[in-house]
Amino acid sequence: MNLSKSWAELPIKRILGVILYCCFPLVSAHANSLPSWNQSSTKQAIINFVERTTNPDSSDFVPVPERVAVFDNDGTLWSEQPLYFQAFYILDQIKALAPEHPEWKEEEPFASALKRDFSTLMNFGHEELIKLVTATNGNVSADQFQESVRNWLKTAKHPTTGKSYTSMVYQPMLELLEYLRSHEYKTFIVSGGGIDFIRVFSENCYGIPPEQVVGSSNRASYQIIDGRPTIIKDSVLSFYNDGPGKPAGIHQHIGRRPVMAFGNSDGDFQMLEWTTAGTGPRLGVLLNHTDHKREWAYDRNSTIGQLSRGLDEAAAHGWFIIDMASDWAVIHPEDE
Amino acid sequence: MNLSKSWAELPIKRILGVILYCCFPLVSAHANSLPSWNQSSTKQAIINFVERTTNPDSSDFVPVPERVAVFDNDGTLWSEQPLYFQAFYILDQIKALAPEHPEWKEEEPFASALKRDFSTLMNFGHEELIKLVTATNGNVSADQFQESVRNWLKTAKHPTTGKSYTSMVYQPMLELLEYLRSHEYKTFIVSGGGIDFIRVFSENCYGIPPEQVVGSSNRASYQIIDGRPTIIKDSVLSFYNDGPGKPAGIHQHIGRRPVMAFGNSDGDFQMLEWTTAGTGPRLGVLLNHTDHKREWAYDRNSTIGQLSRGLDEAAAHGWFIIDMASDWAVIHPEDE
Repeated sequence: MNLSKSWAELPIKRILGVILYCCFPLVSAHANSLPSWNQSSTKQAIINFVERTTNPDSSDFVPVPERVAVFDNDGTLWSEQPLYFQAFYILDQIKALAPEHPEWKEEEPFASALKRDFSTLMNFGHEELIKLVTATNGNVSADQFQESVRNWLKTAKHPTTGKSYTSMVYQPMLELLEYLRSHEYKTFIVSGGGIDFIRVFSENCYGIPPEQVVGSSNRASYQIIDGRPTIIKDSVLSFYNDGPGKPAGIHQHIGRRPVMAFGNSDGDFQMLEWTTAGTGPRLGVLLNHTDHKREWAYDRNSTIGQLSRGLDEAAAHGWFIIDMASDWAVIHPEDE
Repeated sequence: MNLSKSWAELPIKRILGVILYCCFPLVSAHANSLPSWNQSSTKQAIINFVERTTNPDSSDFVPVPERVAVFDNDGTLWSEQPLYFQAFYILDQIKALAPEHPEWKEEEPFASALKRDFSTLMNFGHEELIKLVTATNGNVSADQFQESVRNWLKTAKHPTTGKSYTSMVYQPMLELLEYLRSHEYKTFIVSGGGIDFIRVFSENCYGIPPEQVVGSSNRASYQIIDGRPTIIKDSVLSFYNDGPGKPAGIHQHIGRRPVMAFGNSDGDFQMLEWTTAGTGPRLGVLLNHTDHKREWAYDRNSTIGQLSRGLDEAAAHGWFIIDMASDWAVIHPEDE
């Protein structure tokens, strides 16, 4: 084939089209953004914000390096009922380890964990929860922990939906993440959940690489074990990335104030507050779980994912609220 | 002007050239990579490694998301003699704060700091150094600290060269960072220095954004002060990112093992060890300061930037050594 000849025969518009496609492959992707979102003022506010902050002619233009968008995980990117999904991992680990710990049958918080007594578990304080986390996540190598979570995610099913946990991500949020990245926003997870837990699936599920995950963490240490360089996760929780911990975690990990923050509970309040207190254009969005038919409906009185202060103060802060029942045409990917 | 006509008049090779330039603007940048490096086996080893790991037809191909390269800062990306540059910032702050602390004239480590008695300062232990850091970096807001460092960098001059500190970065390393990024490697700083200190200049000087800086840190907390959301740097050093702290810091911050690591002292030993112990292609490189004419010559017996174990064990680990005097045609940018 004579390449020159065949190119020369192409109409000039087609050639220009190829050039444009090569140079700006993302342009066409924008046209049909957010298909799983119904038309609503919140959807429109998000799109308007992204267009304003990425248009060089707008007074709200944000340079590419500063385009940081942060997302809570539990209840914002995937479901979180009747317990945070990481809690199910821990309960399953406790069960697997129980034969080595006969004393757990009588000893709290392990006894309730083994009975899967959710209502008792949910009323435990920080100290008991730490005991459960420590018994399962502490003093293992980072590689072992990752392998354990990966294997669990392959087979574990949610207790009421029967679905795999990673299929319970929110399709509209997957589209939003992709839409933001297509506008050169860097997307980060900022979660109260364990950083090493989330990193196992964040890249595959959300397109968010491990270095863009901020979460709670145990102290890690470097040791040579049997001649092999190894990262060991200590049994001590060293950073709790929730509530006021979120802006602190953002500072330590990202080192600059986000332009957008998305959350769903009062644990995200300070993250949205910190984000939107910055000068220049800022966007804060809360997802309100209003859909008892397709997901769960909960806010002010929920033990998991309580949203009360956020609802009270959203308007004063100029934050937008996603009403899941009316704003989302689709919830989870398999629903399509 | 008739656009179609003028395009149609262009020779097809020129049109293809424009398309290639639009699609692969970095291709041409590769041709003249690393101009400040003399031809040497280490330069060749780096280039060969980058070409092998980014060539999809090579058995050593590394997918883009896994292309992580980590760099020590002091003595690897910029000079570090006669003291780490951050130490000069601290000494200048101590001097500025001295009128409020008349007791410092008699009290160590402040007395030696005020006298700029380098030899005494260098023999202080961890505890005294922490006192100096705490007196200057603790209990200030992150914004105040950043502003203070930024102002200092604008005017401060190195005590023996008289240059600004940020002009004492290494030109060959700037070229290497850019070369790696043009091959879709993400470049990170992994330093024993303060994360918040380095972030003030890393983006401008090295093209490394704050979220890709890992360093030692004080605990940060989120507080509302006079009604304003504020990040406060506590006075307690919470993470010391040196020696075995470096792989731990890499785990916490990046969450995956680097493909390449560059350092210059025994404080980088574990970072190189952890990096090159991974399966698949890995590269470890140490910069040896051999140039007493253009920079400083020091290794085994230096208090700052001691390199002894690294020299002894480099060959066994397959690490490469940059000999500054012979491998670099240029040291600092202004030398050109």
